[in-house]
Amino acid sequence: MGTSDRTGNAPSNGSNEPGRLGLWLVGARGSIATCVVYGLFGLKEGLLEPVGLVTETGPLARLPLRRFDRIVVGGHEIARGDLSHAAAELVQNGVLDRELVTAGANEAARYDERVRSGLLDEADLGSGNLDPEAVRRSGELPRRQVEELAGDIERFRAENQLERVVVCCVSSTEAYRELAESAGDLASFEEALDAGASFPASSLYAYAALRAGAPFVNFTPNAGASPPALRELAKRVHLPHCGNDAKTGETLLKTALAPVFVARALRVLSWQGYNMLGNADGRSLSDPIRQEAKLRTKDHVLKDILGGGPHTGVGIDYVPSLHDWKTAWDFVHFEGFLGARMSLQFTWMGCDSALAAPLVLDLARLADFAAACGESGPMDHTACFFKSPLSGGTHDFHRQFGRLLAYAERHLADSP
Amino acid sequence: MGTSDRTGNAPSNGSNEPGRLGLWLVGARGSIATCVVYGLFGLKEGLLEPVGLVTETGPLARLPLRRFDRIVVGGHEIARGDLSHAAAELVQNGVLDRELVTAGANEAARYDERVRSGLLDEADLGSGNLDPEAVRRSGELPRRQVEELAGDIERFRAENQLERVVVCCVSSTEAYRELAESAGDLASFEEALDAGASFPASSLYAYAALRAGAPFVNFTPNAGASPPALRELAKRVHLPHCGNDAKTGETLLKTALAPVFVARALRVLSWQGYNMLGNADGRSLSDPIRQEAKLRTKDHVLKDILGGGPHTGVGIDYVPSLHDWKTAWDFVHFEGFLGARMSLQFTWMGCDSALAAPLVLDLARLADFAAACGESGPMDHTACFFKSPLSGGTHDFHRQFGRLLAYAERHLADSP
Amino acid sequence: MGTSDRTGNAPSNGSNEPGRLGLWLVGARGSIATCVVYGLFGLKEGLLEPVGLVTETGPLARLPLRRFDRIVVGGHEIARGDLSHAAAELVQNGVLDRELVTAGANEAARYDERVRSGLLDEADLGSGNLDPEAVRRSGELPRRQVEELAGDIERFRAENQLERVVVCCVSSTEAYRELAESAGDLASFEEALDAGASFPASSLYAYAALRAGAPFVNFTPNAGASPPALRELAKRVHLPHCGNDAKTGETLLKTALAPVFVARALRVLSWQGYNMLGNADGRSLSDPIRQEAKLRTKDHVLKDILGGGPHTGVGIDYVPSLHDWKTAWDFVHFEGFLGARMSLQFTWMGCDSALAAPLVLDLARLADFAAACGESGPMDHTACFFKSPLSGGTHDFHRQFGRLLAYAERHLADSP
Amino acid sequence: MGTSDRTGNAPSNGSNEPGRLGLWLVGARGSIATCVVYGLFGLKEGLLEPVGLVTETGPLARLPLRRFDRIVVGGHEIARGDLSHAAAELVQNGVLDRELVTAGANEAARYDERVRSGLLDEADLGSGNLDPEAVRRSGELPRRQVEELAGDIERFRAENQLERVVVCCVSSTEAYRELAESAGDLASFEEALDAGASFPASSLYAYAALRAGAPFVNFTPNAGASPPALRELAKRVHLPHCGNDAKTGETLLKTALAPVFVARALRVLSWQGYNMLGNADGRSLSDPIRQEAKLRTKDHVLKDILGGGPHTGVGIDYVPSLHDWKTAWDFVHFEGFLGARMSLQFTWMGCDSALAAPLVLDLARLADFAAACGESGPMDHTACFFKSPLSGGTHDFHRQFGRLLAYAERHLADSP
Repeated sequence: MGTSDRTGNAPSNGSNEPGRLGLWLVGARGSIATCVVYGLFGLKEGLLEPVGLVTETGPLARLPLRRFDRIVVGGHEIARGDLSHAAAELVQNGVLDRELVTAGANEAARYDERVRSGLLDEADLGSGNLDPEAVRRSGELPRRQVEELAGDIERFRAENQLERVVVCCVSSTEAYRELAESAGDLASFEEALDAGASFPASSLYAYAALRAGAPFVNFTPNAGASPPALRELAKRVHLPHCGNDAKTGETLLKTALAPVFVARALRVLSWQGYNMLGNADGRSLSDPIRQEAKLRTKDHVLKDILGGGPHTGVGIDYVPSLHDWKTAWDFVHFEGFLGARMSLQFTWMGCDSALAAPLVLDLARLADFAAACGESGPMDHTACFFKSPLSGGTHDFHRQFGRLLAYAERHLADSP
Repeated sequence: MGTSDRTGNAPSNGSNEPGRLGLWLVGARGSIATCVVYGLFGLKEGLLEPVGLVTETGPLARLPLRRFDRIVVGGHEIARGDLSHAAAELVQNGVLDRELVTAGANEAARYDERVRSGLLDEADLGSGNLDPEAVRRSGELPRRQVEELAGDIERFRAENQLERVVVCCVSSTEAYRELAESAGDLASFEEALDAGASFPASSLYAYAALRAGAPFVNFTPNAGASPPALRELAKRVHLPHCGNDAKTGETLLKTALAPVFVARALRVLSWQGYNMLGNADGRSLSDPIRQEAKLRTKDHVLKDILGGGPHTGVGIDYVPSLHDWKTAWDFVHFEGFLGARMSLQFTWMGCDSALAAPLVLDLARLADFAAACGESGPMDHTACFFKSPLSGGTHDFHRQFGRLLAYAERHLADSP
Repeated sequence: MGTSDRTGNAPSNGSNEPGRLGLWLVGARGSIATCVVYGLFGLKEGLLEPVGLVTETGPLARLPLRRFDRIVVGGHEIARGDLSHAAAELVQNGVLDRELVTAGANEAARYDERVRSGLLDEADLGSGNLDPEAVRRSGELPRRQVEELAGDIERFRAENQLERVVVCCVSSTEAYRELAESAGDLASFEEALDAGASFPASSLYAYAALRAGAPFVNFTPNAGASPPALRELAKRVHLPHCGNDAKTGETLLKTALAPVFVARALRVLSWQGYNMLGNADGRSLSDPIRQEAKLRTKDHVLKDILGGGPHTGVGIDYVPSLHDWKTAWDFVHFEGFLGARMSLQFTWMGCDSALAAPLVLDLARLADFAAACGESGPMDHTACFFKSPLSGGTHDFHRQFGRLLAYAERHLADSP
Repeated sequence: MGTSDRTGNAPSNGSNEPGRLGLWLVGARGSIATCVVYGLFGLKEGLLEPVGLVTETGPLARLPLRRFDRIVVGGHEIARGDLSHAAAELVQNGVLDRELVTAGANEAARYDERVRSGLLDEADLGSGNLDPEAVRRSGELPRRQVEELAGDIERFRAENQLERVVVCCVSSTEAYRELAESAGDLASFEEALDAGASFPASSLYAYAALRAGAPFVNFTPNAGASPPALRELAKRVHLPHCGNDAKTGETLLKTALAPVFVARALRVLSWQGYNMLGNADGRSLSDPIRQEAKLRTKDHVLKDILGGGPHTGVGIDYVPSLHDWKTAWDFVHFEGFLGARMSLQFTWMGCDSALAAPLVLDLARLADFAAACGESGPMDHTACFFKSPLSGGTHDFHRQFGRLLAYAERHLADSP
């Protein structure tokens, strides 16, 4: 059977074709999801090069990961609309190429047919353009909600003859909430579920995914997706999961640069970072109840690497004209030998969705592979993708990336 | 005898005190040397914290390296003057603290007595304020020159009852020269020496050091210090040596950041770097025949890490008002998924001498330790200190630093 | 009589020496005041060049302004301590030169003797190290407070045989307060004063100064110093006054750069500014009730120059390690012909007190000169010095500066 | 007759329509010309807003300048190809919008029919893709060359029933040449012309334009377009002309910011500027013989504003991936009161052609208007558009712009 066995690329229907993977996106018509759908189409058609895809480089490229042409995408969404509308805005802002969007029109239409109504988070209340069915669902009791969500995933699998489905949450940042006591273990969680308690939407999505047999990737900072109760569930149902909060830009650089100061014994006095962005993520983060969740994951990485000494600060501002083009400025004040005070500053101008989308594909392929290999629990080797990796450990990007390479090498060494 | 045996800290004179290390600086009253002398004094007296000293961190701090109070400094210099004069300029420019310089006045005077006349490089001709004895020496035949240089080192060892001397070249960048054919092997080199051929000063310093039994550290980009002939000599006399061109600022960041683009499969299109500095190093680099040597080592690190694709460029400008405060701006233009074009730029404002001086102490301690352990040849574990490490290998700073940590761990594991 | 008559440099005591000006600083041992005292000493002694002094350039230098050696400084302060203590901190942070401070020790001691206890603002409550006499004063009824403040100024004038006193407020930013109704006209103001109402300290300082016959310069954003009631008083007592909120760094650049976009018909989409500083001003601005006052004056200048279209934002963060070295980053996103989107960003690293101190001297000399010329009311020609000039008008720095030059030219033309 | 008389908008053919202006571009298919042609089309069709057009703002907008729909464009070009090809490259690089280019296809084709073969400069020799007729022309004697060029302009006027033609040179920067002695006065120039001497192409274009009765705008740094001989000719034939070297980005900012340092008596120590660009202009400037001409005009503006004290430097690097997106970094090191050393740095990211094209339209309209008003010689009021204005005077952008506004106000006041 060889590698196809382990990677899930085995024929699933008696044909000679390898099986297909379903990628289910929570936040199915946001900027990231839109870039995933058109980007995957571009990759399949040879219109795009695999730039930005970590799994297409080094030893990872030699793993028997799911081929792009064997991936089918669907998802949950709470707003009305269709993908071509989201795409038009990204064309307008220079993220997606007009020609790619034109070429992918049919693909987008088929994708829209696979999108189902999601659940509202409290921070979504009052947004315009809500999908009435999503509003209806959000009013149901939580047990019923998770049954509906899981049902969507199972139908997606059945209708598309998928060998496996990976669920990836790429929705907006939720309102920050302290973890409920019931999130501490699975029994309490399910009891609260039956009792009709209030849950963050992220908890319900993650629970539904795992109950539907799908590995779960949390691309967002929403802590509700991975409390102890759900980690217990992942272990129980023997599924891999990973998160939280993808590291795409300023934080990536922070975790790559801070170790240099440590390696050179330079004393960081202050590290102040400012982020400006103008997309839906920026708009939602201008809401203080959501920003709280985000800043928690962005700031702690420096404390971890540099220790508690330096003064650190991080800000996020909504600057509409920038749309998806995140612009961040970081200022590092540090001291060297003889008390000399020096500084490093950097300006990062990155296209958030174009940075995020390939990582979604990378993580989906890695979660698929891990499941095929029978691995379960937090995917430690994906720590380099996240601001708050589930499995903890150092935030030093280079060490984290070393663990990913080692994982790949280990699997390559194990293959015949 | 235990660790003291291996580290050269053994009593050398029957007392219970560990032995002493001599640090012989070529370029003995330049900015770096001045910072080394006052900085070492500050460390001994508890006036300075060991910020910027790599060997005082992590596993390196647990190696039995030579204590700061067991290090004596001397050196070769081609200009007239005394150390307090060099220090006054550094106080003026905010590098050295006036109080440290006042406190170290006696130490500086004793150091001046240990400084001997060096050799001029062709690029030095015509500089004002040359030491007449250095001019006289520079007119001698090369065999005579190396004898005089080696004699200085030997007398330094004898007069100060030193267990070992490490020679570290921190002089100005020499005029760029193609390697002579005679530099290809030791026999040809010595033949040319006897025949009175013309040599770069750096070759003669390195030859003299090794012949005097001293490990040699080349902190400069001067390629003359480590041609095949001298590498052969280091092996022959069983001494460790390392270089070239210390990585203190902009290049350090380049080699820490470039791997991030590789790890994330982002395609670097262009990387342009500009360096401005106003110290003697800046002035001498405004001389095109010296700049050539420097730019060669600064630019190739990117090609090594990123491959040949990107357009790269690096410039150095002499901006007198900056004195020792190197200011560099780098601009990185890169492409991500979906063809999105993004940029990263950074501004580095560092005090060159304050960044360099602790690394000189680190390398002297490491060379001393390597010699004590009986190691010889290029010190592969010091690659993270250099723009062009003698032992080659990756320029990725994080991997290089990993090799240094591994070296330390290995030695710690070997100790009882 | 000639110019000496008009400039107040006339002999005031029968001697041939021109008369003396008193400069009374509210916030007498803050960073700015400390730099004013030592800086004035350095100018008198020829230890400093008049760099940063606007009144020493162009046509202003030809006006018969008060000579530096005819200026005596005193002031009000709420904290205990002496000037040499404040100076030591500024030496530590590289603002003041140690040698200047040593040379000026006697001058500083004499200055300390001229400092009197000031009034607390509500934002000062709870600060450590308060002067007990200032606390006592702050508990008095407001009518009594202004009598005491005015008495201090009058005694300063008498004891030092001063021809005129100019009061300049360089204290911390006060808590933001809506203007009281009683501030709307002088009669109501004085009625409230007699009724024992609560006033911002800045209102009481300004009232006391004008009642003591002293022109008043408000260097701070404290709006309490110039409500309609006090403007009416200045007219009534025929004294010049000016303010508010000196334009020293980031805002200066904003008001110099924004007109370029207007002149070139470029459409500014967003202008986001971030300020970091670590001195007492920064610490007090980290207090939200004070920051409010500051941000109001910093942000409105762009709206004035660019119109209401652009998104603008400005932030201030307290970053202790920077001390007096304000570091600001501004990002300007703009659109040109063909819809092209471009950006300008700048980083300003300035020493706040060294930028402010010479402007205090400039404004004191200009207020003195205006009073000598019999001018009263808001000094329109000083608009270029302020973020919120009392006399209103454009915020375009170049136009404001043109008004200052024109004022000087007019006076020069009027002189014989 | 009124204003239409003065502005050339009078009916030229008995109809009620105002007359038409011809704009003749030297460098007819370069990036700037391409943006002018599509941009003018977009303005006429209402597809573009007049962003970036100085003549559409303030008092200038109230002058009776030629309406966009009364402007016809033609030009000289040395390379083969058509405008849609140049446009495709600009679409690719995000300068022109694909939809605008599609809509303007017919306009572009008509424009191509109005383009004639130009003259090669020595720096063009060896470029691929040269137009054979341009090569033929470049081999003729200079007298014949100017006759052919002038003939093209006259035919353009006749065939399109134009009331006036303005010639604007937007070609690449020529090789730098010292001015020939014969350029010193018109008689010598014409003698040399008859004698078959060698001339820069820019001299011949300017001579031909003026001889054909067309005001001449030199947008380039080519000094050959305005030696004393040609200034004499402009006066003789009573035509306005202006130049040299349009101020679009980094130099614009320099001349707007340097006056701030002067106004605040801050001492600039060093001002170092770096420019990176990747378009044809950047490629041609990577040729040292062309760069010389450019750097001369870019660097002297600072000396003019700041005096000779500061160290200044400016560099231009060809960075292909940037295409038309000029990225410049300037670093200003300056000293304030108390010897404090501070810095300002800015990064400018501008689209060169989108910044230049509207200024070409502005200058064409202003030259047309000046000619209609009977003005001749160097157009002093256009100094704000140029790095080396023909009429000399201050480089301070704000003062220059003040002169433009004053010119407009004066004309508005003169109108009935």
